[in-house]
Amino acid sequence: MKNLLINYISEHIELNEDEKNAIDLLNIFHSFKKGEILLKEGQISNKGYFVLKGCVRSYYIIDGEEKTTNFYTETEGITPHCVINNKPSEYYLNCVEDTIILISNADMEAEMFEKFPKFESLCRILSEKLLTKKQIDLDKFKISSPEQRYKNLLKNRPDLIQRIPQHQLASFLGIKPQSLSRIKARILKNDER
Amino acid sequence: MKNLLINYISEHIELNEDEKNAIDLLNIFHSFKKGEILLKEGQISNKGYFVLKGCVRSYYIIDGEEKTTNFYTETEGITPHCVINNKPSEYYLNCVEDTIILISNADMEAEMFEKFPKFESLCRILSEKLLTKKQIDLDKFKISSPEQRYKNLLKNRPDLIQRIPQHQLASFLGIKPQSLSRIKARILKNDER
Repeated sequence: MKNLLINYISEHIELNEDEKNAIDLLNIFHSFKKGEILLKEGQISNKGYFVLKGCVRSYYIIDGEEKTTNFYTETEGITPHCVINNKPSEYYLNCVEDTIILISNADMEAEMFEKFPKFESLCRILSEKLLTKKQIDLDKFKISSPEQRYKNLLKNRPDLIQRIPQHQLASFLGIKPQSLSRIKARILKNDER
Repeated sequence: MKNLLINYISEHIELNEDEKNAIDLLNIFHSFKKGEILLKEGQISNKGYFVLKGCVRSYYIIDGEEKTTNFYTETEGITPHCVINNKPSEYYLNCVEDTIILISNADMEAEMFEKFPKFESLCRILSEKLLTKKQIDLDKFKISSPEQRYKNLLKNRPDLIQRIPQHQLASFLGIKPQSLSRIKARILKNDER
């Protein structure tokens, strides 16, 4: 897992041996079983997450119904809203699969940034990239029909189709499970022609 | 405008006189008239924007129809996707009102970060905050009905109701202008009871 993380970081900034060792010394790798909950509605947390292996789902419970908003897989970061706005969380995070996660908090980051300013550059670069990705996600969701949303998913995150139960995928796409079945049948029929 | 910017920055990090002067020396304040276009579909740009006064709208043109995805007003930053992924822009940015904007690019930022590392901290903090805001926007859009989306807008960005033409607001909310009229009438009727 350490190598996976260092390879990922090295795509964005160059690390020297001291910096690699500093990462190694942090006790930040944590394993969770499928179904374990990382964050609950109403909870206040100061923890940020970075998925190294597995999948984490974010969802709200509204009128007793789960509304899935996102899936975070390998090399995706999660900073829950409650960490930034210091209010109780409005949503849940749970593990869809057995998952290995890096967990950090603001104190740990401040210490690392002071010792190794390069890590602050890394966090800036990653945040800017993620911000753009998130804006694209929001734009595409707004401007696409349900069928286009499913096609975008097929194109951009095909792994999710295999990994995630249908009803959670449908919720993530903002549609009913029956609509997702109809869309899939329609696409299959058009492909066969 | 310089004071507005410095006050805004000072909410996040402390600036000394040298740092304030460095901002003053940059030639970054630009004025645009209502209706002017900052970015077009197909254009490649390296410019990031920060709205000091006025309003910028982002929109896609799909099958000849404008699909509005966002409005950026005072102290909101815009990093177009094309700046990060280095591909032609998929959308437009235009000024809904006479607008004053700070324009930066990666070279200018790198120079400032080298001279004043504090500015990199600022950019990290702002990006992390914006990322959370964007995630909340996406979550709320997904989990809300059209009527709830309008109510969220009334609560969180009431200024937009006054500033933006109805058909653009409807598009931004992902609904038809007629549906927005019906929602407004329904809310008015319920308030009168």
